[in-house]
Amino acid sequence: MNPPHHFPTPEDAERAFYDALSAGDTDALMAIWAEDEDVVCVHPTGVQLMGSDPIRESWRSIFASARLRVTPEPVAHWQGMLLSIHHLVETLFVGDDPAPHGPLHVTHVYSRGAHGWRLVSRHASAAGEQAETAEPAASHTLH
Amino acid sequence: MNPPHHFPTPEDAERAFYDALSAGDTDALMAIWAEDEDVVCVHPTGVQLMGSDPIRESWRSIFASARLRVTPEPVAHWQGMLLSIHHLVETLFVGDDPAPHGPLHVTHVYSRGAHGWRLVSRHASAAGEQAETAEPAASHTLH
Repeated sequence: MNPPHHFPTPEDAERAFYDALSAGDTDALMAIWAEDEDVVCVHPTGVQLMGSDPIRESWRSIFASARLRVTPEPVAHWQGMLLSIHHLVETLFVGDDPAPHGPLHVTHVYSRGAHGWRLVSRHASAAGEQAETAEPAASHTLH
Repeated sequence: MNPPHHFPTPEDAERAFYDALSAGDTDALMAIWAEDEDVVCVHPTGVQLMGSDPIRESWRSIFASARLRVTPEPVAHWQGMLLSIHHLVETLFVGDDPAPHGPLHVTHVYSRGAHGWRLVSRHASAAGEQAETAEPAASHTLH
């Protein structure tokens, strides 16, 4: 798989992120993260990783242990010239288990650089008893 | 207490946020959130609240049950013209208990509007066994 290294919009980067998750492709996944700045990943386990190398190792280990498919549901987003924030609720499917796992609350932060939009931060945590995903998705464009 | 309704920087808004938390002052806390757009708050319990009214009720109920003091530790931030994202680790002190609670991983999103910088999103989740708070704080200014 030859991941694109230029994402014209945050949505392109996000689509590639979920494609890489479903493919279990660490290299494709890491191509979505910004290379030239610090990056942060908070897993639902509460582990916080800083920098590309720990994040790469972590996803490699996740992909080695399970095949994932993730259905993202947009909750809200804020769009600036150089920064974009997406709130989502993710439903996880693990291996051949048809039962959904999660859901997870996720905050993705994208930054626009020389190579288009890249992920700089992912914060994922387990949703509790109440997840208001029935709300219509809200969006904000700031220019 | 008369909270300021104009925050010249995201840091001003954040300082006011933690002051309001420690004071248990719902009105002061809500003065920090954006009024004119959708706002999202994900609590460490996994509950996701959308909109000022549910967020206000939730904090009112938290303040009614416990006196909190929170020590925030900056982890990373990204600063744009109209959006700002702060990653923090929060240590909680509840009532007179000298033992720290948490820590929590927190992502704050601030948006710049007519009234300065306001909070539009807070995502908080419990930290796991490993919290790399010893890393030096990273910052990025995008202009």
